[in-house]
Formats: sequence, structure tokens, C-alpha cells
Amino acid sequence: MTERNMQIEEALASSLPVEWDVPQPLRESMNYSLMNGGKRVRPLLVLAAAEALGGSHEAAMPVACAIEMIHTYSLIHDDLPAMDNDEYRRGKLTNHKVYGEAMATLAGDGLLTHAFYSIVQSHRKYGVNPFQTLAIVEELATYAGAKGMVGGQAADMLGEQGLTKLEELEYIHQHKTSDLIVFSLRAGARITDATEEQLQALTTFGYGIGLAFQIQDDILDLIGDEAKLGKHINSDVKQGKVTYPYFIGLEASMQKVTQLTEEAKAAIMNSTIPNPTRLLEFADYLMNRDH
Amino acid sequence: MTERNMQIEEALASSLPVEWDVPQPLRESMNYSLMNGGKRVRPLLVLAAAEALGGSHEAAMPVACAIEMIHTYSLIHDDLPAMDNDEYRRGKLTNHKVYGEAMATLAGDGLLTHAFYSIVQSHRKYGVNPFQTLAIVEELATYAGAKGMVGGQAADMLGEQGLTKLEELEYIHQHKTSDLIVFSLRAGARITDATEEQLQALTTFGYGIGLAFQIQDDILDLIGDEAKLGKHINSDVKQGKVTYPYFIGLEASMQKVTQLTEEAKAAIMNSTIPNPTRLLEFADYLMNRDH
Repeated sequence: MTERNMQIEEALASSLPVEWDVPQPLRESMNYSLMNGGKRVRPLLVLAAAEALGGSHEAAMPVACAIEMIHTYSLIHDDLPAMDNDEYRRGKLTNHKVYGEAMATLAGDGLLTHAFYSIVQSHRKYGVNPFQTLAIVEELATYAGAKGMVGGQAADMLGEQGLTKLEELEYIHQHKTSDLIVFSLRAGARITDATEEQLQALTTFGYGIGLAFQIQDDILDLIGDEAKLGKHINSDVKQGKVTYPYFIGLEASMQKVTQLTEEAKAAIMNSTIPNPTRLLEFADYLMNRDH
Repeated sequence: MTERNMQIEEALASSLPVEWDVPQPLRESMNYSLMNGGKRVRPLLVLAAAEALGGSHEAAMPVACAIEMIHTYSLIHDDLPAMDNDEYRRGKLTNHKVYGEAMATLAGDGLLTHAFYSIVQSHRKYGVNPFQTLAIVEELATYAGAKGMVGGQAADMLGEQGLTKLEELEYIHQHKTSDLIVFSLRAGARITDATEEQLQALTTFGYGIGLAFQIQDDILDLIGDEAKLGKHINSDVKQGKVTYPYFIGLEASMQKVTQLTEEAKAAIMNSTIPNPTRLLEFADYLMNRDH
């Protein structure tokens, strides 16, 4: 594990204040999913974007934790019986299989709510500009809300029986996956007063690698190694879900991942972002990952 | 309906921007519960607190809408089969009975998330102080989160089988009900840079009327009129839920409501809050309501 991954794990582990009087099963349920060993893609993107603009990891960390709380809550709620009804996630029992449906619903609600508390701490503890902090709050509520991730999840659910167009699938991918990636990049950049031009370059970059990330997920689900993914291969196909390879085939999907990644990198390289190395490496890492 | 109630209804009806690209069933599901004719107690408290400190209703309205979104999401999730499994709310079918469990879960998530967007609009549109706006965001995340309302809901659920002490019931009431009332008062006051002393008086007032409100609910559930409440009388007792009258009897519960209300009003009258009339009237209204 890299040093920055360890820093993220530490920050997440202490993100719900120990002095807070929280019912113990609720605290455990929230921590169970938050500390469930994800790749921390979104927090890493927050830190990489802050770094690209010369911002400190320390000031960006509360925002990095916030986006992981959002991602985690969405997985808890998605796994519920009424939604995807999944029993395992990353090789471990899903939250409701351990704590029951009611507590899992509340743990998700608690994490979603606490994300906004965490963002404000970037201002409180590290002096991030109040206007930028408010913009981060506003953008999280937009990218993660009805117009963003929650809308993507709703469209996914509504489309399960009758998705017939690639555009519909791309709408779902954009909102279920890319919106949080774009938020992560923009929020990291706002730690240091990024310009509109830089925010726009990060947005283009984010939608590119976000779609590439999701297509790669579809590909890995089709050909990947069961142990590495921690879920049953082909579970999407078994549930009758349509994926990118379903529409355009496996080879064209792989080419699309490469093309999207290159276009995303170009948007960053053609911008005034001063230290883009980590961002560019990240794009390559996502494209080449095998789990 | 009073003029201020109509203003609240109008603001709520237009709170999710029409130009936002939101899947139609999700938008409908969110609006179904948000526009379900509640008493709007919490928004009215936001406006009353703003007024008590000389603030404008206009600037306070996005915060008033935010707290109603939080209240609404909590009802949608509480009504789910895995939680209280209620089929009716205010005489109408609950959200999941109309839109299904998955959409109801997402509608709740969407409303919870959108509340934070709404708060930021007080700053964006009406120039509320950015530091106060950030404090409102932080306090909503605290009072509505794991330490607050979500924690109260978890404690309620955990206690359903074995609640034996009045203190446990008061913990649940404080967090399930009073925390949002206290938030509403403090947030309304922050629209106009209230002092710490004024915020403290409103906090004392809020916890007093909050507990009185909940005990009154318990009393009405025992003796009230079914049609007015829109749910089956004694549904709590039927489900084996313990209430305040269960512990100390009906008459002592009624006296407690009066005592708490008077103490709450005294906290406001002994403070430097300049225009407390509406707040004091509100306390009396809550104590004397019959539904």
C-alpha cells in the first residue's frame, strides 16, 4: 500500500469523531463498509487534483474522505434486497447481511450526511477559502444527487428491463460513475482556488476517465478473475444487465477505453494545470488495471 | 392556510430545479412525499427564528426548504418495510407503496442530498454570510446525522424489543425529533448573525418544545381522532412501542407538556432576542394542537 493510501485509510478510520455519542451498532455498521478495503479511487483523485494545482494533501483530506463516504453509502444502498440484492462486496458480506436491512439503510443515511460535515472541516481546520468550500458543498449535492449519482442509479434501475440504446447506457454510466469522479477532481482543485479554465479541463478529463473506468469494469466483469474482483464473474450478465461489450463487442470496448483515456490526458496536457504528472499516471493506471 | 404556509408550499414545489435532467419517476417520487401536506413545523420555525432576529423570510426560505427535505426523507426511509413498514402517512399511501422500495430509497437519498444544495442557495441568491452558511451546513450534518436524527432512529429501532428506562425514550425523542427542531431555530437565527447567547437560548427553547411536541404526539396517538391524524390510532401501542404515557401515565404526560413549554418560553423571554412573539406563539400552538 502506498503512503498516500495509508494516509487515506487513517483519515477514514478517524472520520467519525470518537467523542460523538452514536449508537454502537450504527457506528460499527458505518465503519464496516467505510473500511472495507476499496481502491480509494475517488479520494486519490481529490489528492491528485489538489497536488496538480499545488494544494496540500492535508487540506484536501476531509474532502477526500467525504467522497469516499458518498461512494460507500451508495454501495450500501445499492446492495439492499430492494435494489441489486447483493450478498457479497469485495469478498465480504454486504452491510445488510451483517447488520440487517434497517441498520444498513441508516448507515447509508449516516455516511451520506456525514460527508457534508467532513467537507466543512477543510475550511474549519485548514483554512480553505469559505467561498470555495461552499462551492464544494454545492457541487457534491449536485453531482451526487438527483441530477447526478442518485439519478443515474434510478435510471439504471428503471432501465433494467428495457435498455435498448447505447445512449441510455452512457447516461447511466455518466451519472452513476463519472459524476463522482468529476466532482473529486473539481473539489481537489478548489482547495487552491483553481481557475475556471482549469476546472473545465478537469471536468473533461473526469468524464473521459470515468466512462473508461466503467467500460473497463464491464470488460473485467466479462473476462476478469473471480478472486480478484471478489464477486461472481458475469453476475451482471446473469442478472440480464446490458453492458458496453453487449452493445459494441469486447474488442471495440477495449479500444474505446484506450481512446477515452488518451483524449482525457490530452485535455489536461493542453491546459494551464502546472503539475499534471500524477493525474496522467492515474488515467493510465485505471486503463490498465485488472481488478 | 396562512400566507407564510403558502410561501413555504410554493418554495418547496419549485425546490428541485425544473431544468435539471432528473429521471421522471425519481422526480415524481421525491415531490410526492415533499408535497404531501405536512404541517411544515420545521420550516415555520426557521422563519420564526429568522424573524425573531430581524432576518428576512426570503433569505431564510432555502434553509426552511432544506429542513423539510430532511424531515421528508426520514419519513420515507422510516416507512420502508425493513423499518416501520407503514402503508399510510397523512392519509395517503407511503412512498414505497406508490413507487416501490427501490425508488423510495433513492427518493430519500435524493432529498437528503438536495437539502445541502438548498442551504447554499441562501448564500448564492440572498447573500447570507458565507461563514454562517458553512455553519448551517455543518450543523445540519450534525443534527441530522449519526449523532443526531439518524442516531435517534437507530436507537429507536434497537430499543423496540427492550426499552425499559425513561432515559432511553428521552434519548430517542431528543435525537429523532428535537435535534431537527433545534437545528431549525439555530439555522434561522444564523441568517442574520445571531450571537452565541441568542443561539444558546434558541437551543434551550428547541429542546424544550421538541420534547413537548413528541410527548404531545404520544398523547394524541393514545386519545386523538383517527381522521385528523391520518393513521390508525394506537398504532404505536399495537406495535408494542413504548411511549411517554406508558412510563408516567397520561395525566403526568399532559402536565409535562405544559411544564416543558413554559420553561422553553422562559428561556426565550430571558434572552436578548428582540422579536420573540412568533416563537412564543408557536410554542403555545404546538402544546395545544389536536393533530
